[in-house]
Amino acid sequence: MTNPRILSGTAHPALGDAVSEALGTEPVECEVERFPDGELRPAVGHVRGEDVYVVQPTGPGVNEHLVELLLLLDACRRAGARRITAVVPYFGYARQDRRTRSGQSVGARVALDALTAAGADRLVVIDPHTPALEAMSSVPVETLSAVPLLADTLTGHAPETAVVVSPDLGAVKLAEHYGALLGRPVAVVRKTRLSGSDVQAEELIGDVTGRPAMIVDDMISTGGTVEAAVQVLLAHGAAPDITVATTHPLFVDRAPDRLARLPINLLLVADTVPPAHVRTLPYRVRTVAPLIAEAVALLHGGEPLDTLLMRG
Amino acid sequence: MTNPRILSGTAHPALGDAVSEALGTEPVECEVERFPDGELRPAVGHVRGEDVYVVQPTGPGVNEHLVELLLLLDACRRAGARRITAVVPYFGYARQDRRTRSGQSVGARVALDALTAAGADRLVVIDPHTPALEAMSSVPVETLSAVPLLADTLTGHAPETAVVVSPDLGAVKLAEHYGALLGRPVAVVRKTRLSGSDVQAEELIGDVTGRPAMIVDDMISTGGTVEAAVQVLLAHGAAPDITVATTHPLFVDRAPDRLARLPINLLLVADTVPPAHVRTLPYRVRTVAPLIAEAVALLHGGEPLDTLLMRG
Amino acid sequence: MTNPRILSGTAHPALGDAVSEALGTEPVECEVERFPDGELRPAVGHVRGEDVYVVQPTGPGVNEHLVELLLLLDACRRAGARRITAVVPYFGYARQDRRTRSGQSVGARVALDALTAAGADRLVVIDPHTPALEAMSSVPVETLSAVPLLADTLTGHAPETAVVVSPDLGAVKLAEHYGALLGRPVAVVRKTRLSGSDVQAEELIGDVTGRPAMIVDDMISTGGTVEAAVQVLLAHGAAPDITVATTHPLFVDRAPDRLARLPINLLLVADTVPPAHVRTLPYRVRTVAPLIAEAVALLHGGEPLDTLLMRG
Amino acid sequence: MTNPRILSGTAHPALGDAVSEALGTEPVECEVERFPDGELRPAVGHVRGEDVYVVQPTGPGVNEHLVELLLLLDACRRAGARRITAVVPYFGYARQDRRTRSGQSVGARVALDALTAAGADRLVVIDPHTPALEAMSSVPVETLSAVPLLADTLTGHAPETAVVVSPDLGAVKLAEHYGALLGRPVAVVRKTRLSGSDVQAEELIGDVTGRPAMIVDDMISTGGTVEAAVQVLLAHGAAPDITVATTHPLFVDRAPDRLARLPINLLLVADTVPPAHVRTLPYRVRTVAPLIAEAVALLHGGEPLDTLLMRG
Amino acid sequence: MTNPRILSGTAHPALGDAVSEALGTEPVECEVERFPDGELRPAVGHVRGEDVYVVQPTGPGVNEHLVELLLLLDACRRAGARRITAVVPYFGYARQDRRTRSGQSVGARVALDALTAAGADRLVVIDPHTPALEAMSSVPVETLSAVPLLADTLTGHAPETAVVVSPDLGAVKLAEHYGALLGRPVAVVRKTRLSGSDVQAEELIGDVTGRPAMIVDDMISTGGTVEAAVQVLLAHGAAPDITVATTHPLFVDRAPDRLARLPINLLLVADTVPPAHVRTLPYRVRTVAPLIAEAVALLHGGEPLDTLLMRG
Amino acid sequence: MTNPRILSGTAHPALGDAVSEALGTEPVECEVERFPDGELRPAVGHVRGEDVYVVQPTGPGVNEHLVELLLLLDACRRAGARRITAVVPYFGYARQDRRTRSGQSVGARVALDALTAAGADRLVVIDPHTPALEAMSSVPVETLSAVPLLADTLTGHAPETAVVVSPDLGAVKLAEHYGALLGRPVAVVRKTRLSGSDVQAEELIGDVTGRPAMIVDDMISTGGTVEAAVQVLLAHGAAPDITVATTHPLFVDRAPDRLARLPINLLLVADTVPPAHVRTLPYRVRTVAPLIAEAVALLHGGEPLDTLLMRG
Repeated sequence: MTNPRILSGTAHPALGDAVSEALGTEPVECEVERFPDGELRPAVGHVRGEDVYVVQPTGPGVNEHLVELLLLLDACRRAGARRITAVVPYFGYARQDRRTRSGQSVGARVALDALTAAGADRLVVIDPHTPALEAMSSVPVETLSAVPLLADTLTGHAPETAVVVSPDLGAVKLAEHYGALLGRPVAVVRKTRLSGSDVQAEELIGDVTGRPAMIVDDMISTGGTVEAAVQVLLAHGAAPDITVATTHPLFVDRAPDRLARLPINLLLVADTVPPAHVRTLPYRVRTVAPLIAEAVALLHGGEPLDTLLMRG
Repeated sequence: MTNPRILSGTAHPALGDAVSEALGTEPVECEVERFPDGELRPAVGHVRGEDVYVVQPTGPGVNEHLVELLLLLDACRRAGARRITAVVPYFGYARQDRRTRSGQSVGARVALDALTAAGADRLVVIDPHTPALEAMSSVPVETLSAVPLLADTLTGHAPETAVVVSPDLGAVKLAEHYGALLGRPVAVVRKTRLSGSDVQAEELIGDVTGRPAMIVDDMISTGGTVEAAVQVLLAHGAAPDITVATTHPLFVDRAPDRLARLPINLLLVADTVPPAHVRTLPYRVRTVAPLIAEAVALLHGGEPLDTLLMRG
Repeated sequence: MTNPRILSGTAHPALGDAVSEALGTEPVECEVERFPDGELRPAVGHVRGEDVYVVQPTGPGVNEHLVELLLLLDACRRAGARRITAVVPYFGYARQDRRTRSGQSVGARVALDALTAAGADRLVVIDPHTPALEAMSSVPVETLSAVPLLADTLTGHAPETAVVVSPDLGAVKLAEHYGALLGRPVAVVRKTRLSGSDVQAEELIGDVTGRPAMIVDDMISTGGTVEAAVQVLLAHGAAPDITVATTHPLFVDRAPDRLARLPINLLLVADTVPPAHVRTLPYRVRTVAPLIAEAVALLHGGEPLDTLLMRG
Repeated sequence: MTNPRILSGTAHPALGDAVSEALGTEPVECEVERFPDGELRPAVGHVRGEDVYVVQPTGPGVNEHLVELLLLLDACRRAGARRITAVVPYFGYARQDRRTRSGQSVGARVALDALTAAGADRLVVIDPHTPALEAMSSVPVETLSAVPLLADTLTGHAPETAVVVSPDLGAVKLAEHYGALLGRPVAVVRKTRLSGSDVQAEELIGDVTGRPAMIVDDMISTGGTVEAAVQVLLAHGAAPDITVATTHPLFVDRAPDRLARLPINLLLVADTVPPAHVRTLPYRVRTVAPLIAEAVALLHGGEPLDTLLMRG
Repeated sequence: MTNPRILSGTAHPALGDAVSEALGTEPVECEVERFPDGELRPAVGHVRGEDVYVVQPTGPGVNEHLVELLLLLDACRRAGARRITAVVPYFGYARQDRRTRSGQSVGARVALDALTAAGADRLVVIDPHTPALEAMSSVPVETLSAVPLLADTLTGHAPETAVVVSPDLGAVKLAEHYGALLGRPVAVVRKTRLSGSDVQAEELIGDVTGRPAMIVDDMISTGGTVEAAVQVLLAHGAAPDITVATTHPLFVDRAPDRLARLPINLLLVADTVPPAHVRTLPYRVRTVAPLIAEAVALLHGGEPLDTLLMRG
Repeated sequence: MTNPRILSGTAHPALGDAVSEALGTEPVECEVERFPDGELRPAVGHVRGEDVYVVQPTGPGVNEHLVELLLLLDACRRAGARRITAVVPYFGYARQDRRTRSGQSVGARVALDALTAAGADRLVVIDPHTPALEAMSSVPVETLSAVPLLADTLTGHAPETAVVVSPDLGAVKLAEHYGALLGRPVAVVRKTRLSGSDVQAEELIGDVTGRPAMIVDDMISTGGTVEAAVQVLLAHGAAPDITVATTHPLFVDRAPDRLARLPINLLLVADTVPPAHVRTLPYRVRTVAPLIAEAVALLHGGEPLDTLLMRG
């Protein structure tokens, strides 16, 4: 039986390389030409008959990364790959899973349909913003979670009295997953989102008085949600000893600077997208490469993934 | 019977507005929110039951424009549009119509399949790089031509002795279309393309000695092809009185500066993409808005488009 | 312009008739033969060229109702209907929107794909358990809400001091919709679901001491969730003056008896499924027929539905 | 090479178990949860990379069995099965293979399309009511026959003078298959079907005077067709020594009681659906488990099925 | 409202013209170029926005006619027809509705899928060999019957004592339709088909002694089936006064000569394919043009077709 | 690992046999019954689980060959082939890759869609008239070239002074491929095609004075294009020593006689279609069997085809 083959786009080549290395398999050569007018043209190496995993998160620069991924999938299909799995550690547009007002698009479905049309036989994602992503896809989706990895790192940073905090209602299940792994209670901030990038925190559910707080979320974009949660926590008497953990460190719009002004004693992130360099904060990156490598090995070998899956 | 409705994305709103105005129809309101992480979310106005034409060229910034177009089509579909026509005056990725070496993608098909998956019922394009685009699409394509418009403007700039010049073999049919409309012979430059952005001109077919030359091409990207053609023409004794006409003025990589160094007495372009401001050259923009408006009116009204079509 | 046409399956003919009457349109005749072995065979009346709305909720008896709906859609398609909208006021299997453990099906997608394969051009649903249902469907979905109707009835039953209660985290957005319409605060019960039909309530978020409570949920199945919420409310000192409102009164497994043992002063339900006869409780049914009728009129007439839509 | 894997739904688990046992392969674990509101949720065991055969006849309770089968197929697809074959020994809705009057559905196609949409790569059926079922399916269908098995059992019950009787025109080819295997002539009853469950026999083709008759049909539903045939046979002087054989013993509406009143000396059935307990008649069940097991072994091993196929 | 538009391929232009004339609608101009290498290229006239009916039977020369039909459908689709109905009065390959031995194709499905892929939105057929054709098609099929037309002509040729004869079991339902319309009993010939073009008649069901016989069948290909039936009839004492009626007079392999040797007093055919010139027999052609015209008018106008449909 | 299996239709069985022999694999048995009315019915041998290559060019008799190919693909699919590759050495209808005037079909896409619908998983073609064929196909296409084979034969017939001649602009890239392999310059004839079978040559690009000319083209149909090119060459002073080479010798309409009147010293053809017997000319056939065999071996074995591919 042949090995699985990893092919990295340009969105996060280091991650793909680390996965290849972890698997001990030679990565598929891939060169993406970028023309002066912005068109991309990939040329992939020999994949005929292979079980190929194309690793490409669709984080910031999402449209570039998404179209490149479509072209990579098409190239693999034409080159005769036996099966093509799109590994999209961070799946952009997952927040567009419904219209919240008339006239909107549902970007999650648009992205999924485009990936299917371009040749994906299967998807692998990590902690997607909507765990129902698999129901939106016409091809099977395996939904992994980086929470066990991150919780493992947090263990040494979680005093007895700490409480896990979900910064909004959408992250409660994720927080409960952390809570269960860490053996800590879960508090919840209820907020009202006023617009795409601005937030207003409102209320805290659970007791945090004098306790260290561990804010967890699937993604940090501008940092606004975390900032609001910190303010609510402090207003409710939490200890100024706050840990922040997230799977997807998008860090746009000077998010690191924003976070640096907060009493954060550890910012822990996975590397589903290329992690920013953050200097002003105690900062730690835990790589998902072993997680992806294990999933690929199990998928390729025909084994169940159960222990790697997101808790829905 | 209701009017056709024009909806413009952000790639070229002025063109969409001009088409609406020419048709005397109120444009569909459309707002495209751009999130800090680069995700787009359109909200389109009332289109239920309408015959909608989404105008969005996919010129430079092609991936952004393409994904935005997908989202716009999806939004129209969900909002209940009766029929959705994607009007893509410049169709990016049309050059990727085959693999020229193993392992490549075929971007034209990828883009077409994504548009179909997102909800396009039909396409309208202008002078696509490959006239076989319609055979690659799973939905009908109407292939218009800006050549009659541009040739009409050229008439006053075409002395008796002028010769139309195709700067490479791919543009010969286009040049013959100009030649027929202007009543001028056609010469051809044979070149070898060495890479995506660099060219090497080789040979001239036809007599240009002492004659003004009118170089025509479907698109000008970096200007390299035109530059090479000019050099060949001068080397073969053409008069230093050169006109350049193109449907798609992509003008990337300082193309205007490059062209400004050449003995060009008129640079004539259509506005299938937002035309650059060119100051150093005699420059004229001929708008395709009336062409698109007429096509939309005929399509909406159920009339044949024959006189507007590209000569294949 | 012709009228829209309503066709009712056997799941809830009274609702379809009421919609027809509200619209002043003659219902499509439809007879569903049921063979001794359980096979169904519908015969629908004349629908050629018509804009048909097939009204069939897929409540208890869900599999029978679902297959009958598939057959009805097929019959309409073969009979030449111009457009077929499946109006599924209660959409069964919506809770299966993801796998929560390995090896499960995703029933929401299975049902949606079957409906699409059988000929649905569009769906209309009311307060589905997952508002992302539209992202899972390959045809457009209009997601209506019965909340404004029910809140309107509740107005007279909501003392100044009342609080809206979401009996679990999944209903918070629904509860906030009620809260906004009624001008009342929202409290939340956090529970852990132990199995499909059994629940364990845990915690109350918000202050209910001495206040009347209005428990709202999208659906009531066995009544277990409501029962648990009532117990939590009473334990937290809520006044024994409780109102319960729901869009989908599935009422299986002796739910009315279960609810009758609780201090409920009003049980308010919509009729998205045929409402049970409840005698032991103050009970009120508010029909969604006008809501559906208005949506059909707007869809048929090409108008936006904005005011009827669910708040996502 | 791995073994084929058998997965049984709840429609006929004994059959699936017998097939597994015959093949010496461990069945796929499968648990189907049934919620109080009637929704089903299967959880299937480890099937990643496996060649899975889902055994589920869609006999009485047809809609329940059909939807369960859809969910099982979906579960297998999402769990990564390499190939999924739906083994539907009795295929319900096969009689709906055309509209016999305006406005009807064509249930056979509806069921087939739903199975395909849910993930079936291939079907295996036994003696379907319409042998053209394979032309209606978008995925390949293998059409097995239980006639050789049943004929083998009949051999000892077929005196020299016996005649095979087709109880209507639709079963003539089946009867000819029996006739050829048993070396007996074939007589035919022509009847007019007045409704779905009621029949009127009319005419007998062939000589049965004083001869034992062997009535054969693909299915027995209410027993009405057999009853009518017996009456015609007796009226034409057949010996009161009648054998009845059928592939699909649906036995609805007290069929056994109905048959018990007739001079039947042997009722022979296959077990494509769970066979009823029949006490009042000489009754014999011949299992199709070895037939299915052999077909699965050949399909899995890449061998032709020729000897197992229905004679069309 | 516009008129329906008739477009005729080259298989039977006279029929299309007659339909146009009957409808009082101007036919769509259509020119089919035939290249020296056998490739066809149609150019159809203005059909944008029209409701187009492409009339093309696929009788002998079936492959030429089928491919031409595919090209015509594609041309109409690209030209913007609003709806395209393929009117295939004789549907070739209908006999291939199942595999009768391993390794065969199922041509009926192949033809139907090709028509759907080429752009047919709907089909209209007349007396297809398999009435389950509609279940095999992915687009709706309207199945008309020429039997009432032919029976109407036969009325004057059916003496009181005449008997309708089905020449094999496959035509029994058709014969019963004739029998019901003419008020005559139906006899049946049971034959064994030895090969595609050769037949062996065996047995006669029903009494024909001294009576005129009216042999009816859906199609006459080589005439072998009719010839065999005549021999059986004469052997059973039928009067040498035989009428033959068929919807599809394929008449290949010198069928007219073959029939001319038989005691046939009237050969009545419809013109679903261009009827041969038959001189040696009393011969009458009844055109289906009014039948098709009425169906088109009803389909276009949104009326039910009930009275025109085949009895299944 | 099993061998690839070759299955030949009736279009060119000798080629398929030669491929099988070259591969040392036993061909799949295949019998194509041809009924008197022209319908075809193939029966293919045992292919379950096999990797099957169906060899069938669609040269003259194109419609017969195309439909037969559809039926063969369907037969293989139903028989359980693991993967089906249509090897279409000459792909008919490739010239119809766009509409050149309103109302036309696009036959290339029609043929490709029909092949896909009938079950082709992949295509292999040789020197198609349009190299963008792969962008038109919904399944992957491998585009081989016979040019290296033919150029190899030409080497001994190409004097130092010879010039490769493209008889029209469409064949320039092909001619450049020959030129590069032979180390000879390329001249081009520009012609205007007046109709499908008639041509008018106009102009010669490049110097041929006194030099032997090697006219190369992808196909020779009536020979008209070659005839015109020869006349232009002679008029421009070429030596009357002309070689003609082509991949696809369609040779319709007495092409050999037409060519025999020209000063051709070698007519070299591949055998992508059964080559005509040409007696009046120095004639040589170079078989593509080894080319196809090598491609099949590489495809089956999962190796890249790079060296066999057409230069686009």
